[in-house]
Amino acid sequence: MIYDPIAASDGARLGRLRLVHGMVNTPAFMPVGTYGTVKGVTPDELDALGAPIVLGNTLHLMLRPGANIVARHGGLHEFMGWDRPILTDSGGFQVWSLAANRDLSEDGATFASPVDGSRHFLSPEGSIDVQRALNSDVVMCFDECTDFPVAKAAAAASMKRSMRWAERCKTRHAGSPNALFGINQGNIFADLRAESMAALTDIGFDGYAIGGVSVGESWPDKAVAIEAAVAAAPVQAPRYLMGVGTPADLVLAVGWGIDMFDCVMPTRNARNGYLFTHRGVVKIKNAVHRDDLSPLDADCCCPTCCGYSRAYLHHLSRCREILGARLNTLHNLWYYQSVMQRIRAAIADDCYASFRHAFLTGPEGSGSHAAEYFGGVQEGSAAVAY
Amino acid sequence: MIYDPIAASDGARLGRLRLVHGMVNTPAFMPVGTYGTVKGVTPDELDALGAPIVLGNTLHLMLRPGANIVARHGGLHEFMGWDRPILTDSGGFQVWSLAANRDLSEDGATFASPVDGSRHFLSPEGSIDVQRALNSDVVMCFDECTDFPVAKAAAAASMKRSMRWAERCKTRHAGSPNALFGINQGNIFADLRAESMAALTDIGFDGYAIGGVSVGESWPDKAVAIEAAVAAAPVQAPRYLMGVGTPADLVLAVGWGIDMFDCVMPTRNARNGYLFTHRGVVKIKNAVHRDDLSPLDADCCCPTCCGYSRAYLHHLSRCREILGARLNTLHNLWYYQSVMQRIRAAIADDCYASFRHAFLTGPEGSGSHAAEYFGGVQEGSAAVAY
Repeated sequence: MIYDPIAASDGARLGRLRLVHGMVNTPAFMPVGTYGTVKGVTPDELDALGAPIVLGNTLHLMLRPGANIVARHGGLHEFMGWDRPILTDSGGFQVWSLAANRDLSEDGATFASPVDGSRHFLSPEGSIDVQRALNSDVVMCFDECTDFPVAKAAAAASMKRSMRWAERCKTRHAGSPNALFGINQGNIFADLRAESMAALTDIGFDGYAIGGVSVGESWPDKAVAIEAAVAAAPVQAPRYLMGVGTPADLVLAVGWGIDMFDCVMPTRNARNGYLFTHRGVVKIKNAVHRDDLSPLDADCCCPTCCGYSRAYLHHLSRCREILGARLNTLHNLWYYQSVMQRIRAAIADDCYASFRHAFLTGPEGSGSHAAEYFGGVQEGSAAVAY
Repeated sequence: MIYDPIAASDGARLGRLRLVHGMVNTPAFMPVGTYGTVKGVTPDELDALGAPIVLGNTLHLMLRPGANIVARHGGLHEFMGWDRPILTDSGGFQVWSLAANRDLSEDGATFASPVDGSRHFLSPEGSIDVQRALNSDVVMCFDECTDFPVAKAAAAASMKRSMRWAERCKTRHAGSPNALFGINQGNIFADLRAESMAALTDIGFDGYAIGGVSVGESWPDKAVAIEAAVAAAPVQAPRYLMGVGTPADLVLAVGWGIDMFDCVMPTRNARNGYLFTHRGVVKIKNAVHRDDLSPLDADCCCPTCCGYSRAYLHHLSRCREILGARLNTLHNLWYYQSVMQRIRAAIADDCYASFRHAFLTGPEGSGSHAAEYFGGVQEGSAAVAY
């Protein structure tokens, strides 16, 4: 078991992961470092803002620079200069996102490289081999995603193939000191999600991820799927909700018993000038910030908020300066980690439901689809269970 | 007098500038921060790599964000978070570089904004006013540049207008605690350069810049112009060669008695993967670096060379990652400052001629136009006076 439970509050779990490259306090948010770099940020800066673990993308790294180049450095840690834990995705979601340029069979996936159009094949075994070459602390099973909407029979058939692939991944991973997570599938169908989780539990993994969400479904559909998956998941293992989400999404999902998250939102949005603050979202390119001498977020102690005015950040973003992308990214990542700290503190203080209510109904939850669905309802109603 | 001489060696001068925001050891190289940021680098990083002063572009900043916005912060130092000295150019060279989109008269220059095409007018007085709003430590006179090639009569007329403008700048600058530098003009004509310097000296400035070089002329032509200007410059004031150059150019020009430089070369080239090292230029995007585990420059102690392999830098540049631009820029700026340190050490040790010879004939001088002209010649020949 890699997961140590510490406390629980209103469905939320406080815990700790023991990984080869160190401990991760959960619930945890993982910044995304697609190509062996969290875009615009150094490992030292990630360390300073408290990122406990970062995510690397297997498919991207096998195309550029190639797993062999990373392996020659000793692994992804040495390649990118990051000595804390790394989780790598399997490439399954990335292959799915290529849409027309992929061809799936029981063996695996053939796809065209988005870099140069060259043809590649990725199987469950191949994905595990690449992730071993990257030497990630947490290896993900290679899985198949489904579109939304999808017929239930197709969702079931796809999920069952993912379960067969999960078994092949488990076999291939044998003997590695790194953790291996299974990925739950089943689209929006609660019974398929439960069946998938039961199949994964039978195979036995170090952790259980929920994949194939945020593919276009509504938040209530997503909630049903996640709840069904979590309800069937073993309590003694970490649960990872892949590719989610806004700060409000994280606060909600922690209340459903999720322990881990990753998302490009803080980094990608930062580069577009879309910034998360304690007072809500700030679109820094808007003219209203042109001569605003105040800090971006007066309640934030990140280097961006402590060193620069909104007018300066506005100016940098308008001029498309690299430093603007840097400072914006640093702030958003800092903010996300501070939300995770507050989440962990609320669980430790056993007041998660009231923290969640305040968060979702306050400025930080405003504008979030999740908060729209679940944040405005009153305590005691059915929906507030979310 | 803002310039304290310390030592001299073979025509090179070691000294110190006293400016409002601090001291600058000379010879000094100033990184260029066009829009209130040295592209991709924070003030903390500039401090760590030993940049003693940075340059801001008056014309760019008056267009974006506007001098009034910078002034509301208290000046450019506060706006960009840099508390050491700043030199601002006057906009003269920038107006010249707009070519067809400018219209010059005795009053000043009308030009179309490269940002949005709007019409603007910049006069000597207007330039000084903007630079006062920016509160730069070193204010530059507004001048007119000439094309290359140019008829001598036209070069003379333009130079004389620049001298009249210099006088207007001196008048407008009166009462400011900041330094004001005159700008020498005269294209490639030694007598015009001498005449211009005499006119500037008559007006009286805190320092003397050599402008209008590197506009297409050959290195021997440039050398003649610079030598003529320096020969006529007062010894008790700093001399600033604007917009120059490669490391070899700096080493050469210091030997002609130049004290200050600025150039976009280390930053712009870095973003294109063109890196300066102790072993010569490295084009990091070249395939030969794809699986090279060695550092970019084994003789460099910058964060890039101490933390990452050539293969990683190659990968980042190929993927157009922001971190690649950052790490490359940091290295090139670090390298330029280390060249300045070595220059100052060689003057202090009174061995400048032998340092210069070794530099220009070694790998660091290789490929430089300046070194081609002056580096290969033997000690004792006429050309080695350069």
